[in-house]
Amino acid sequence: MTPSELEGLPIPAPQGHYQPVRRCGGIVATAGMTPRSQGEMRFPGVVGADVTLDDAREAARIAVRNALLALTLEDETLERVRLLRMTVYVAAVAGFRDHSHIADAASEVLDRVLADRGACARSAVGVASLPSGACVEIELTASLE
Amino acid sequence: MTPSELEGLPIPAPQGHYQPVRRCGGIVATAGMTPRSQGEMRFPGVVGADVTLDDAREAARIAVRNALLALTLEDETLERVRLLRMTVYVAAVAGFRDHSHIADAASEVLDRVLADRGACARSAVGVASLPSGACVEIELTASLE
Amino acid sequence: MTPSELEGLPIPAPQGHYQPVRRCGGIVATAGMTPRSQGEMRFPGVVGADVTLDDAREAARIAVRNALLALTLEDETLERVRLLRMTVYVAAVAGFRDHSHIADAASEVLDRVLADRGACARSAVGVASLPSGACVEIELTASLE
Repeated sequence: MTPSELEGLPIPAPQGHYQPVRRCGGIVATAGMTPRSQGEMRFPGVVGADVTLDDAREAARIAVRNALLALTLEDETLERVRLLRMTVYVAAVAGFRDHSHIADAASEVLDRVLADRGACARSAVGVASLPSGACVEIELTASLE
Repeated sequence: MTPSELEGLPIPAPQGHYQPVRRCGGIVATAGMTPRSQGEMRFPGVVGADVTLDDAREAARIAVRNALLALTLEDETLERVRLLRMTVYVAAVAGFRDHSHIADAASEVLDRVLADRGACARSAVGVASLPSGACVEIELTASLE
Repeated sequence: MTPSELEGLPIPAPQGHYQPVRRCGGIVATAGMTPRSQGEMRFPGVVGADVTLDDAREAARIAVRNALLALTLEDETLERVRLLRMTVYVAAVAGFRDHSHIADAASEVLDRVLADRGACARSAVGVASLPSGACVEIELTASLE
């Protein structure tokens, strides 16, 4: 059974020539996922210019749910998934400082869905631009127990 | 035997104090590779300003071939390589949206050289600058079967 | 016994909802570490504007020591650590080219602390902004032998 926070959500379709998720041995990697929902990019733009901090946090929740949905292709219930690292790219104006506040919104989703198995190392960085104007892009690396 | 697309190409020399490729247990990581060819940086600059989309796609092909050449140091024929993830950094102007189109050119090289074993998760992000003025930098993570 | 270059230094406290280090199977990942020392961000700003190349190199040394300190939570002496990859994010002005010179300062620390086991693949990229105004952020991925 899919975790309830993800129930009924479609697995995100790749926007190019790649796989949404890939397993090699015991390691699983997701593609970088954007806040795309029902085929539409949510909250496009640059944080600090067109996108507020609250909207960016909501975008991070959608992006990380997409990454978790990709993981369900390898483990439907996510019960064997143990996260290693989350990388959070934020398209932000120069001088932006609050990357961690945005990334925390994604970490809270991991907490709810995976509990202890979702506690992981994290990197958050501010970038100049993201595919299709996304304000956030999130990738997960995990092991399958 | 080296895959034919890579035949005769030199393995890229590190541009600093690091290894072109590193294996730990069953996992292999390449350094971030730029479109350096015969000692010269090809298509330097920023996509959307000095570098066209077509040139950036050619740059991505050169960079990913360099990453594959690095992998041949661990597995000459690449027959045991199964890719986990490709990360594509694109130095691009603010508002750039077509990262996936550039990354697709690299994915097509992986397809030709590795076939199914080259299908992997992918992240593409737009950055402010890259070493030595590169317009693209690509890193690969793989398992060795 | 902690390696002498790290002796007496505190393990960096997470600046958000994440773990400083995470182990899954034989792979260990650190969070992205900034040049925070005794609770204070050292050398904040943008390389090429507010931060000189020499200061950015010192910042990279502090950041990579923080990443090594995080690894001591999994292996106190670091004697079983073998590095796979270092990623170095540099907050830099447009047109910046000397990422490798900054990353080399971090690689030299790895050399001193881990010797051969610190030689790894490396990616260096220039980003628009980093958490809390950091000029450098460094993450390590390693295996535990």
